[in-house]
Amino acid sequence: MNSLPKKVITFGEVMMRLSPPGYEKFAQANSLELVYGGGEANVAISCAYLGMKAAHVTRFPDNALGKAATQFLRKHWLSTEHVIYGDTMIGKYFLEKGAVHRSSEVIYEREGSSFSLIKPEMIDWEDVLKDADWFHWTGITPAISEGAAQCCLDAIKVAKKRGVRVSGDINSRDNMWKYGKTMQEVMPELVQDCDIVITSSRGIREMFGLGQSSDKFRVAAKSLMDAFPKIEKVVGKTRKSVSASHQQIQGKMWNGSEYIKTDTLNITPVIDRVGTGDAFAAGLIYGLLHYKSDMEALNFASAACALKHTVLGDVNLVSLKNVTSLTQGDTSGAIKR
Amino acid sequence: MNSLPKKVITFGEVMMRLSPPGYEKFAQANSLELVYGGGEANVAISCAYLGMKAAHVTRFPDNALGKAATQFLRKHWLSTEHVIYGDTMIGKYFLEKGAVHRSSEVIYEREGSSFSLIKPEMIDWEDVLKDADWFHWTGITPAISEGAAQCCLDAIKVAKKRGVRVSGDINSRDNMWKYGKTMQEVMPELVQDCDIVITSSRGIREMFGLGQSSDKFRVAAKSLMDAFPKIEKVVGKTRKSVSASHQQIQGKMWNGSEYIKTDTLNITPVIDRVGTGDAFAAGLIYGLLHYKSDMEALNFASAACALKHTVLGDVNLVSLKNVTSLTQGDTSGAIKR
Amino acid sequence: MNSLPKKVITFGEVMMRLSPPGYEKFAQANSLELVYGGGEANVAISCAYLGMKAAHVTRFPDNALGKAATQFLRKHWLSTEHVIYGDTMIGKYFLEKGAVHRSSEVIYEREGSSFSLIKPEMIDWEDVLKDADWFHWTGITPAISEGAAQCCLDAIKVAKKRGVRVSGDINSRDNMWKYGKTMQEVMPELVQDCDIVITSSRGIREMFGLGQSSDKFRVAAKSLMDAFPKIEKVVGKTRKSVSASHQQIQGKMWNGSEYIKTDTLNITPVIDRVGTGDAFAAGLIYGLLHYKSDMEALNFASAACALKHTVLGDVNLVSLKNVTSLTQGDTSGAIKR
Amino acid sequence: MNSLPKKVITFGEVMMRLSPPGYEKFAQANSLELVYGGGEANVAISCAYLGMKAAHVTRFPDNALGKAATQFLRKHWLSTEHVIYGDTMIGKYFLEKGAVHRSSEVIYEREGSSFSLIKPEMIDWEDVLKDADWFHWTGITPAISEGAAQCCLDAIKVAKKRGVRVSGDINSRDNMWKYGKTMQEVMPELVQDCDIVITSSRGIREMFGLGQSSDKFRVAAKSLMDAFPKIEKVVGKTRKSVSASHQQIQGKMWNGSEYIKTDTLNITPVIDRVGTGDAFAAGLIYGLLHYKSDMEALNFASAACALKHTVLGDVNLVSLKNVTSLTQGDTSGAIKR
Amino acid sequence: MNSLPKKVITFGEVMMRLSPPGYEKFAQANSLELVYGGGEANVAISCAYLGMKAAHVTRFPDNALGKAATQFLRKHWLSTEHVIYGDTMIGKYFLEKGAVHRSSEVIYEREGSSFSLIKPEMIDWEDVLKDADWFHWTGITPAISEGAAQCCLDAIKVAKKRGVRVSGDINSRDNMWKYGKTMQEVMPELVQDCDIVITSSRGIREMFGLGQSSDKFRVAAKSLMDAFPKIEKVVGKTRKSVSASHQQIQGKMWNGSEYIKTDTLNITPVIDRVGTGDAFAAGLIYGLLHYKSDMEALNFASAACALKHTVLGDVNLVSLKNVTSLTQGDTSGAIKR
Amino acid sequence: MNSLPKKVITFGEVMMRLSPPGYEKFAQANSLELVYGGGEANVAISCAYLGMKAAHVTRFPDNALGKAATQFLRKHWLSTEHVIYGDTMIGKYFLEKGAVHRSSEVIYEREGSSFSLIKPEMIDWEDVLKDADWFHWTGITPAISEGAAQCCLDAIKVAKKRGVRVSGDINSRDNMWKYGKTMQEVMPELVQDCDIVITSSRGIREMFGLGQSSDKFRVAAKSLMDAFPKIEKVVGKTRKSVSASHQQIQGKMWNGSEYIKTDTLNITPVIDRVGTGDAFAAGLIYGLLHYKSDMEALNFASAACALKHTVLGDVNLVSLKNVTSLTQGDTSGAIKR
Repeated sequence: MNSLPKKVITFGEVMMRLSPPGYEKFAQANSLELVYGGGEANVAISCAYLGMKAAHVTRFPDNALGKAATQFLRKHWLSTEHVIYGDTMIGKYFLEKGAVHRSSEVIYEREGSSFSLIKPEMIDWEDVLKDADWFHWTGITPAISEGAAQCCLDAIKVAKKRGVRVSGDINSRDNMWKYGKTMQEVMPELVQDCDIVITSSRGIREMFGLGQSSDKFRVAAKSLMDAFPKIEKVVGKTRKSVSASHQQIQGKMWNGSEYIKTDTLNITPVIDRVGTGDAFAAGLIYGLLHYKSDMEALNFASAACALKHTVLGDVNLVSLKNVTSLTQGDTSGAIKR
Repeated sequence: MNSLPKKVITFGEVMMRLSPPGYEKFAQANSLELVYGGGEANVAISCAYLGMKAAHVTRFPDNALGKAATQFLRKHWLSTEHVIYGDTMIGKYFLEKGAVHRSSEVIYEREGSSFSLIKPEMIDWEDVLKDADWFHWTGITPAISEGAAQCCLDAIKVAKKRGVRVSGDINSRDNMWKYGKTMQEVMPELVQDCDIVITSSRGIREMFGLGQSSDKFRVAAKSLMDAFPKIEKVVGKTRKSVSASHQQIQGKMWNGSEYIKTDTLNITPVIDRVGTGDAFAAGLIYGLLHYKSDMEALNFASAACALKHTVLGDVNLVSLKNVTSLTQGDTSGAIKR
Repeated sequence: MNSLPKKVITFGEVMMRLSPPGYEKFAQANSLELVYGGGEANVAISCAYLGMKAAHVTRFPDNALGKAATQFLRKHWLSTEHVIYGDTMIGKYFLEKGAVHRSSEVIYEREGSSFSLIKPEMIDWEDVLKDADWFHWTGITPAISEGAAQCCLDAIKVAKKRGVRVSGDINSRDNMWKYGKTMQEVMPELVQDCDIVITSSRGIREMFGLGQSSDKFRVAAKSLMDAFPKIEKVVGKTRKSVSASHQQIQGKMWNGSEYIKTDTLNITPVIDRVGTGDAFAAGLIYGLLHYKSDMEALNFASAACALKHTVLGDVNLVSLKNVTSLTQGDTSGAIKR
Repeated sequence: MNSLPKKVITFGEVMMRLSPPGYEKFAQANSLELVYGGGEANVAISCAYLGMKAAHVTRFPDNALGKAATQFLRKHWLSTEHVIYGDTMIGKYFLEKGAVHRSSEVIYEREGSSFSLIKPEMIDWEDVLKDADWFHWTGITPAISEGAAQCCLDAIKVAKKRGVRVSGDINSRDNMWKYGKTMQEVMPELVQDCDIVITSSRGIREMFGLGQSSDKFRVAAKSLMDAFPKIEKVVGKTRKSVSASHQQIQGKMWNGSEYIKTDTLNITPVIDRVGTGDAFAAGLIYGLLHYKSDMEALNFASAACALKHTVLGDVNLVSLKNVTSLTQGDTSGAIKR
Repeated sequence: MNSLPKKVITFGEVMMRLSPPGYEKFAQANSLELVYGGGEANVAISCAYLGMKAAHVTRFPDNALGKAATQFLRKHWLSTEHVIYGDTMIGKYFLEKGAVHRSSEVIYEREGSSFSLIKPEMIDWEDVLKDADWFHWTGITPAISEGAAQCCLDAIKVAKKRGVRVSGDINSRDNMWKYGKTMQEVMPELVQDCDIVITSSRGIREMFGLGQSSDKFRVAAKSLMDAFPKIEKVVGKTRKSVSASHQQIQGKMWNGSEYIKTDTLNITPVIDRVGTGDAFAAGLIYGLLHYKSDMEALNFASAACALKHTVLGDVNLVSLKNVTSLTQGDTSGAIKR
Repeated sequence: MNSLPKKVITFGEVMMRLSPPGYEKFAQANSLELVYGGGEANVAISCAYLGMKAAHVTRFPDNALGKAATQFLRKHWLSTEHVIYGDTMIGKYFLEKGAVHRSSEVIYEREGSSFSLIKPEMIDWEDVLKDADWFHWTGITPAISEGAAQCCLDAIKVAKKRGVRVSGDINSRDNMWKYGKTMQEVMPELVQDCDIVITSSRGIREMFGLGQSSDKFRVAAKSLMDAFPKIEKVVGKTRKSVSASHQQIQGKMWNGSEYIKTDTLNITPVIDRVGTGDAFAAGLIYGLLHYKSDMEALNFASAACALKHTVLGDVNLVSLKNVTSLTQGDTSGAIKR
C-alpha cells in the first residue's frame, strides 16, 4: 500500500433532504431543515472525511437549487468536476424523524428528476475513472431509470477494464423498479464484475434466486460467489432495531474462505439513523484499502456505521481518529480536549 | 358498527402552552414555544387523527389570541363551530421540560380566564350533541369554576338523554378547587351518568371515599361501580416513572366481570410527557367504538399512550396505522419508506 | 449554623463558550450558541441558585464582549463588583457535543486573554474577602499564567488569615502549564492552606508524587493529608462513562477518620456533560456549610452533580429543592405542577 | 345586501412554498421556511380574514404532505370539504427574497403534481357551488393542464347557471402553457361568462388581440367588454417598482360607464411582495359585495393590496378593520393598544 | 456636578413581553420572543447603560417566572434589592409588530398581576431612596390599582422630603383606569411635587382641564406650571408617524422662561418602536443631571429617543458614546471598528 | 480576450465572523451567526460567482475550526489547494449590525492568529500563480505581521515576473500597524509593481504623502501615478452614508488619460454593509478582464458593490446576470420567475 491518498469515485442521485426540525411531525413543521444526500454520495463524503480523495458523479437541474446541491458536495470535500446539469427538478425526500416506537417516515419525490433523465453519452467514464482506485455504486441507481442503469453498467465495465476495484451495495426493492425492467433482469450483469458486494441473504434470494435453502448469510453469500466467481467478498450487517431510538449493529463477511463477524455495537440514543448503511460501506472501502486483514476492515466498517448514528444528516462526518478510537474498544465517548 | 366515522364531542379549557425550547430552564429562555392544549381538546384532536369526527366546545377571549387558539384546533382537524368568545384572558401554562432526575415544572395561570367565566346559558347542548356518538369530559373542568362545573353537568345530562355515550377522566386534586365547592361535593353527580370512568384507586378513594380497604385498582373500581351502577367500565393505567426520560405504561380495566391488563410498554427516551393520559383516553374511546373486545380496546389505548410520549406538544398526532402497528407488537420503530 | 445566607467567593477565568446547536458538528454549524463558563464561576453560580450569596473575581477585556460576559454573571445572581477590565481578548472555548460513542470535542483559545494577563496588584483580597464565608479555587487557574497563580496564592493566604474556609478543586494536567513553571512546583504552596481538597488518586500521584503504592482513592487521600496536615477532607468522585450519553456518578470522601461513599447515580441520557464537576464542588460547599454530617454533604454534592448533567450550559441552574428531592431518593423526575 | 356572511369559492393549485429565511440566498440556506400558497387559495383565505365564508377546491397527494397542506387551509379558516386527494406530488415553489436592486427569484416545480392530474369528473360543481355567492378563478389554472382547464370551465358554467357571480384574474404568460393548447385558444371561452375581469392592457392584447391601438388600460378594458358583453367591470392596478423594497400601487377600473382610479399607495419597506395581487382581488370581491360604489370597492381593493406587502407568506392575514382604517386615510401605522 | 455616578430610582410594573418573531402576525406565531419591559424599568435600564447607577422597585410573583424577570433586570445592570415577591401572576403584553401601513397591535394582560396587588406597607421608601439622586414615575402606575397609586404617591413625597429630584412621565388614558378612581382625581396630587413633568398638550388638557384654549404645547405647559408651581420644566416631544416604519421625532420644553425645540430626527426604517418614549425620559434625566443647558439636555433626550427606535426590545441599550455622537450631528451610522 | 474562464488568485487572512442575529446588540445575543470573511477572499469568491476561476491562499489553525473555514471557501467555489495549516488560533471579528443612526460595531481578535504567524517560505508563489490571470491583495495584509507583508511582496514580484496582472486595494489605517513597521515604510514597495490601485485621496495622502494640495481624487490619483509609473489605473468610490440603513455609491477612476465617474446608486434599506468594497474590487477585476472600456468596467464594479449591500455575510453571492441587469439600468428589483 503506497502512501498517496486513495481516490474513490461514486455515482448516483443526490437528493434534497427536507426534514421537520428535531422530532416535529410533518403536521407541525413550519420550516424544513435542508441537507443533501444519496447512498453513493454519502459514501464518497465519508471516504473524504477519512482522508481519501473522493469525487461524485451525478446530474442536477441547471438552476440555483442544482448549484446549491453541488456546493454541499464541495463543502464536504468532494471533487465536483464531473457533476453535470440539465432539466429542471432535483430529486427530494422528506424525512420525519421517529423516536422509540414511532417510526421515521420518508416520502420520496424522485420521478422526473434531472438525475433520472441522465443518458449514457453524458459521462466519459474513461476520463472520470482515469486516476481512481475504487468505484462504488448501489442498487438504487439501476432502479431509477434505464439511463441511470446503463450509466452504472458503463462505469463498472470501464472500472473493471482499468483495474479500478468495484464495490456494489446492491440491496434493492421490487417496488422501486417502475420503468419497465425488473431487478432480476438488470442486477446480474451489474454484479458480475464487482469485487465486493454488500448485501443481505434476503437480497441475494430476491434478486438472484440464490441461497433459498437457508436464511443464513454465510450460505447465501457462498451461493452468490459461486454464481458470480469474480466476486471476492460478500459483506453484510445484522441490525437489531430495539426501537427507533436504540439500534444494535454487527458486521459480517464471507471472503471465500472464512466467515467473520464483529462484536455487536449498541447505539442509544440514536441521533440520525439515515445513511448508516452508507457509512458502513465507506468504512469497508477504507478498511479494505488500508488494513491487512478482513477482520480489521470489517471492524472499521462497523465502527464507522455505529458512529454515523450520532451524526445529523445523511453523511458521516466523523474523522479517522473517531473511528479508530472506537475500533480499539473505547466506547466511553469521553470528552476530547 | 356502521361505517360512518364516529363523532366525539369534548368540553373544557384550552390553554396557551408556553415552553422554553428543548431542555432550557425558565432562567435561560429567550423565547417560548407556543402550542395549545387542554385535557379534553387533546382527546378530541387525538380522535380526529385516528379518523373520527371531533368537535371541541370551549370559550376564548374575543381577541387575536383567542382566534389563534381556535386556529390551532381547526388546523388539527377539529370542528370549532361551538367555540364561543368573550372576556379578555386566555388560560396559560408554562412548561419547563425536565430530564432524567430533573422534573418538568408547570406553572399555571388560569384564574380569571375566559373559560373560567363561562355560564351555562352560553351553550346549547342539544344542538352541540345532536349528531354525536360520544361525549368526553375530565375532572379538571368542574374544578375551574361553578359555571364550568354546571356546563359540564348539563352536557352529561343531555348526552345521557340523547343516548350519547359518556366518558369521564375524573382524576382531580383538592388544591385545584378554589371557588368554594369541593370535589367530594361535585363529582358524584357528574360521575353517576357516565358509561366509562377513567381514574385511579387513589382518585376513587379521595373523591368518593370508596375502596379504602385496599390499594388495588380492581377493588376500588368494583366499589365505584357498586356505588354508581350506570358505570360500565372503570379504566386506569399504571405508570412507572423510572426517570423523567424513561417511563413505563400499562393499561388496566374492570368491566364489571373481569379485570384485564395490558403488557407494559417501555418508553425511553421520552420526547414529551404531557398529554399522554389524554392520548390514553382517546385511544380508549376509539378502541371501545371500533373493537369487539375490551382487551383490544385497552391495548389500543395503551399503545396510543405510549406513542404520545414521542410527540412534541400536548396532542397525539399519530395515525391509526401507527397505533395498530404497535398493538400488533412491532416495537422496532423501523423507518417507513 | 446561623440563618444569614453564607457568602462564597470564587476566582478564575470565565470563557465565552461557543457551541454548534444540538448535536451538530463544527463542520455543520452556521451559528454558535453563546454562554459563558469557567470552573470557578460555575461553582459560584451554582451556590447562588442554592440560596447562598456569591461573588466572582475575574478579569475581562474592556469592550462590549467583556461587558456581556459580566452581564451573564449578573443575570445568574452573582455579585460582579470585583470584576476588573483591561486588555482586549476574552478566553474562549468551542464545544462540539458528542453522543453515544462519539466524543465531545473542545478547542480552547485562552492564550493572551485578559485574564491570563492579570497581575496581583489588581485585586485587593482583603476587601474582596471581607465578609466571605468560603473561598474556592481550582487547579486550572495557576496553570494559566504566573500572574494568575500569584493572585490565587494571595487569595488563599488572605482567606486563611481571615478565617474564611478554602476549598480547591485541584485537578490539573501537565499540558496546561505553558508559562515556565510546572504543577509540581506550584501546587504544594497553594494546597497547604486549603481546608477541603477535591481531587483524584491520579491527581495526587501526578501533582505531589504521593499515594503511588496504590490506585485507591482512600490511600492517596490519606497520604495527601499526611503531607499537608491543614487539609481536613479530601473529596473525589468516581465517574463511569458508559457512553457520552450515559454516565454514572459516585461521591467519595476521606475526612481523616472515615472513608465514605454515596450510592451511584445513573444518568441517561446526558443533556450537557460540561460543568458537572463544578456542580459537585458547589454541592459540597453547600453541604458542608448546611449539613451536620459529611455523608449528608457528600450525598448533596453527588445529587447536584447528577442533576447538572440535565442542564444546558456550564452552570448548574437547579434549585435547592431539586437537589434535596434527589438526595431523599426521588429519582422519578415526575412533573411538578 | 343581507347580513349573512357571503360565501366565496375558489379553485386552483396550492403549492408548498419553500424559502430561505429572511434575506438568505439559496446558496446560503440551511433550512427553508414552509408555508403554502396559490393565487386562488390566497384570495379565499383573504376573504375569510375579512369575515366572509370561504372554501377552496383543489387536489393534493394522498400522503402526509397533502394532509399538511390541507391543515394550512383549515388553520386559515377555509372550508376544506371539497379538497380531493390522489397521486403523489405536491406542486412547489422556491422563493429567494430580494431587496433593493436584487430581485426575488422563484423556481417552480409543478409538473406532474397531483393538481395537474385533476380530471373534470372528480368535482361535483353543483354541490360545491350550492350556497355560494361568488366564484373566483385565475389564468394560472387553465395553463396547468387540460384537466385543470376543463374543471375551471365547468365551474364557471355551473356558477353562471346558478347565479353565482364570477371573477377571473386572468393574467397569464405564454411560457406557462406547455400541454398543447395556447392561452389564445382557451381563455375566450373562460372569460365570456365572467362578471368581473382583473387584467392589464398587456394581458388583453396578448390573450385576445384586443386594444392594440393604445397602451391605455381604459381603451383595452373597453374593447374587452365590447368583445365579451357579459363582463360588467374590468379592473387592474398600476404597480411601480421603485426597487424590490419599495413599491407603489394604484387601482383602476372601467365599469362600462366610467373610468376610476385610486390614489397611489407608497409601500416601503416591502416585507413580502408575493400574493399582493391576490390580496387586491380578494379586496375587490369584498368591496363589490359590501360597498355601494365602485370607487369604495376599488379603494378597499387597493388598501388590501398595500397591506399584504407587510405580511409574510402568500396570504393576506389582515382584518377588515386594518383595511378600512387605511381606506379612511390613516397611513400612520400607529400602534393599536 | 460631582464625579460619582448619579443614582436613579424608578417604580412600576415590569411585564413579560411576548412577541411573534420578526413581522409574523399572531395567527402565524409558533413561538414568542420573550423579553421584559415596563415604562419605568425601561428608564432605569437606559440610565444604567448611560453610566448611572439605577435601581428599580417592583413586585413579581414568587415563582420561576418572577425570578426570571428579576434576572432580566439584573442582567441589564439594575440593582434589584428592592424587588418584592408575592401572589402568582406576572403582568404580560403581547406585541405584534407592524410595518408601513400595518399597525403594531398590543394585547395587555395585567389584571390581577402581582404588581397590581402591591400595598403601600410593602415598600420602605426611606430606605429605597436613601442615596438616590432622582426618582422617576409614570402615569401608568397610578392607573393600575389603588395600592400602586398610593405607593407612587408615597415615593414622591419621600423623595421630595429627601431632596431627591422627581420626574413624572404622566401621560395616561381614561380607559386604563378601572379600579374606581379617575385620572382627573388622582393625578394632581402626584404631579404637584414633581420637578420635571413629561407630557403633551392633550395630556394636560385631559388630566387637568388646562390649556384648553390652544393646541400649542407651549401654552399648555405654561398653564400647567401656573397650576403646579413646584414644576420646573414641562417637556414633550412631537412625533410624526409617516408610517409604522418611518417616524420623526422632535423634543420640546418649556422651562418657565423659554420654549426650546430640537431639530427633527428622521428614523427609517424603525426596528422597534416600543419604549422610545422611555428612552426619551432617560435621556432627559441624564441630560439634566450632566449638561449645563436645557437645550443640551433636550438634544440628548431626543437623540436617545431616536436611537431606541433601532434597538429590539423595550429597553434602550445604547451607550453614552452612541448618544453623544448623534447629538454632535453624526447621523451617518458609519461602522465603528 | 479568449473564452476560457479567467483565473484570479487572492492572498490574505480569512476570519471567523460572529454576529448577533438580525439587529440584536452584543448584550442581547444568545447565539452568534457564523460565517467567514476577509477582504481578499471576499474578492475571490465574488469573482467565482461571476464565473471566473478563483483560488485563495491563506493559513488556518490545524484544527476543526481551520477545516471548517476551508470548507466555507470550498462551498463558495474557491480552489483551496494552497491553504496551509499550522498554529492554533483563527482570526475573528465580532460584528454588531447597526441601523439608521446606530452604527455597526466591530471587535477584532487577530493577534496571534495562524495567519499572522505565516512565513514567506511557507508559500511557493511560482506554483500558486502558474496559470493565473490576476493577483489581488489589500492593504490589510502587510499591516498584520512582517511575515504577511513579506509573503505579499513575494507574491506581487512573482506575479509581475510572470505577467499576471496585479491589483491592490491599498487602504490602510495607522492604528492597524503594530509589529514595528509603518505603512509609510512598507506600502511603496508593494504598490510600485501594481497595475491597478484601488484607494482614496486620503489614502494616497496618508500613505505616500502625495496629493496634499487638493482633496480631489483626480489630483491625488494623478500624483500617485506620477510617483509609481507602472500603475495603469487608480480607482476609487464615493460613499455617502445617509444613515446606516441608507447608502449611496459612485465609482470613479483616473486611467492616466481621463477621469470617469459612474452614476450614483441609492441603496435603502441596507441588508449587510460589510464587504461592499470587496465586491467593488471583484467587479472591477471582472470588468477590466471582460469589457472593452473602462467606463463599462467601472459601471460593473459599482453595480456589484451596490448589490452586495443586499446580501448577508461578507461575500457577494450575486450572479453575473444580477450585475449586468443593474448595469443596464434595471433598478426595479422585479421578481424573476
